[in-house]
Amino acid sequence: MSVYTGADLRTLRERKPLVHQITNYVVMNETANATLSLGALPVMAHAPQEVEEMASVAAALVLNIGTLSDHWVEAMLIAGAAANRAGVPIVLDPVGAGATRYRTDTARALLAELEIAVVRGNVAEVATLAERDAEIRGVEAIAASDSPAVLARAAAMHLGCVAAVTGPVDHVSDGERGYAIANGHGLLGTVSGTGCMATAVTGCFLAVRPQAPLEAAAEALIAFGVAGEDAAENARGPGTFHAALYDALYNLAPDTLDVRARME
Amino acid sequence: MSVYTGADLRTLRERKPLVHQITNYVVMNETANATLSLGALPVMAHAPQEVEEMASVAAALVLNIGTLSDHWVEAMLIAGAAANRAGVPIVLDPVGAGATRYRTDTARALLAELEIAVVRGNVAEVATLAERDAEIRGVEAIAASDSPAVLARAAAMHLGCVAAVTGPVDHVSDGERGYAIANGHGLLGTVSGTGCMATAVTGCFLAVRPQAPLEAAAEALIAFGVAGEDAAENARGPGTFHAALYDALYNLAPDTLDVRARME
Amino acid sequence: MSVYTGADLRTLRERKPLVHQITNYVVMNETANATLSLGALPVMAHAPQEVEEMASVAAALVLNIGTLSDHWVEAMLIAGAAANRAGVPIVLDPVGAGATRYRTDTARALLAELEIAVVRGNVAEVATLAERDAEIRGVEAIAASDSPAVLARAAAMHLGCVAAVTGPVDHVSDGERGYAIANGHGLLGTVSGTGCMATAVTGCFLAVRPQAPLEAAAEALIAFGVAGEDAAENARGPGTFHAALYDALYNLAPDTLDVRARME
Repeated sequence: MSVYTGADLRTLRERKPLVHQITNYVVMNETANATLSLGALPVMAHAPQEVEEMASVAAALVLNIGTLSDHWVEAMLIAGAAANRAGVPIVLDPVGAGATRYRTDTARALLAELEIAVVRGNVAEVATLAERDAEIRGVEAIAASDSPAVLARAAAMHLGCVAAVTGPVDHVSDGERGYAIANGHGLLGTVSGTGCMATAVTGCFLAVRPQAPLEAAAEALIAFGVAGEDAAENARGPGTFHAALYDALYNLAPDTLDVRARME
Repeated sequence: MSVYTGADLRTLRERKPLVHQITNYVVMNETANATLSLGALPVMAHAPQEVEEMASVAAALVLNIGTLSDHWVEAMLIAGAAANRAGVPIVLDPVGAGATRYRTDTARALLAELEIAVVRGNVAEVATLAERDAEIRGVEAIAASDSPAVLARAAAMHLGCVAAVTGPVDHVSDGERGYAIANGHGLLGTVSGTGCMATAVTGCFLAVRPQAPLEAAAEALIAFGVAGEDAAENARGPGTFHAALYDALYNLAPDTLDVRARME
Repeated sequence: MSVYTGADLRTLRERKPLVHQITNYVVMNETANATLSLGALPVMAHAPQEVEEMASVAAALVLNIGTLSDHWVEAMLIAGAAANRAGVPIVLDPVGAGATRYRTDTARALLAELEIAVVRGNVAEVATLAERDAEIRGVEAIAASDSPAVLARAAAMHLGCVAAVTGPVDHVSDGERGYAIANGHGLLGTVSGTGCMATAVTGCFLAVRPQAPLEAAAEALIAFGVAGEDAAENARGPGTFHAALYDALYNLAPDTLDVRARME
């Protein structure tokens, strides 16, 4: 299997897959708009009464633990089980794993009880889940003892799924094969929730390539990174960059993506 | 009674009516800002301990089921009953009705237990409530067997309130009389929550014309549609359009609205 | 002690302090982005299982009652007690105090049970807490019988903490000394949540000057007001102003802040 970002984006825009997201309060609007701008259909639903029904008809499920509480964890487990039964791929964003015991334990529980296709996090979050040393301040990675490339591979092996470690250069691995993606822009780090958006976009590409989670993750990070580059062009700071990021996702030209990908 | 969008917007800006909103997590900031940009005062409150007090002093109540859970449904019923007792008009946005049983049942329960002035939804949501055939994917209408005009009229008769069915052309009906409004822009469909904003704006106009819900709904969709046209002028995609939409609502010129209305 | 806005902003950007926020659904993204644009690290966490751990390692705690419910109040009390034990300063935003009994009682309970460093609110909210006459519509101050300067001083004495009363001119007082700050712009009143952002920015400066809450509050309102002035320059309304506000916070030049401060 290989990485065909342009072709898969074209497919996504034709199919408009439904991407069910159980995510945090801070970024709900942002990830919904990133999903919609890219060309897929977002839906947010977290009630135990409806998540099974919604996840079963979705093309991908996004679980994000950015603002946890017990009712939401319960909903994630119900939705995830329904997604697994229906063959709907799941991407997990372990926001703040390592920062509090509750977040670490919840991320581990989701990984233990559900079949997760991709985990997308920063170095500290992924290192925590892979039981390696790391330091996190709130939800921001401060340090990790492994390089991101080593960490992605180790986490994929440890967790039995694709690991996507994002940063200045993103690294994705399934434990055997891997890609490094150097697209993106420093302004992405100045807007809250761009990591969560990258996870939502991963869900969008997983919806199109459910059998190739490694490639889907790489494509998502290429597409999102290229959009970040475009958004930065006329931005004067985090606010105008944020608005331009949706424009850029919406205006991504499938024909140019494979050429613009800075991937190894 | 007739449609006087310009005059009613002028009244709204003078009175700054309080519009109490119990809405979904995804769009709370967006509907608050749409309300404030137009010239009314938004307030979000959902605790059972305070919704009765807040709804009673508001000039309109907006109920939106976009991210449901039981505590929120309970709050909507308490707030709605208080609004009904105080003569405060209610607009309901049945987000995702038809997508899950929980949403459909909740929208029906609100319609059964409360006196709703206006229901504002897309064709699939309104068709579901009117018990007509429709297809919805998440919260996006895919198909309905009736034309929007027929559906608005049928829903109004079935539900005993004004029905506002929005889409490329919006249709509002009280079961006897009706208006079709062709204002708006395709970019409205690329931003999450613009339907919810249209509902909030409907609440704003209901606050000014509580005795004329059909006209209030038409005026809201004219004003919001014209703002969408203005916002699209210099937009480069969903992000800059979104920011420009608040500018446009804020800068709406009452004198021009009745001329610019594309209404039948 | 004195007001050194530029030097303290420089320190903040070097240290990147963690500012834990338990705030309302409407503005979570906005206050996170204001915090991040300024140069600090925001984290939102409200689960009873983790707030103690998070608040203990933060450099400041922001409590905001804009969309209350019992679970959130419980979390605020747990987090606040942990912050007090750890010597982490707390800023309270009593959104809508005076509008409903629940909000008034909750704000008073937080003030009674926790050691609050700064209360930041509009005239009506602060007057309610100081047991003076005021009128509020939703969360918007309509009238207060005292001037803001008198009110800030009276509230500080009554509440035993620094009071920051924001409006066209902001007044901060510790009951003995006080500052009046005339920075800002009228467009700040057209965007929902700018008051909450001012509170978050107050938390950021408290993180740098925990021993000087009066000065921290003044510095925050100077920095935020200057950013508002910068953002207004090319804004065409509330939407473009809102985006430009994050740009302006990000681009604040420490060297110019003390010169641009309009403080008495």
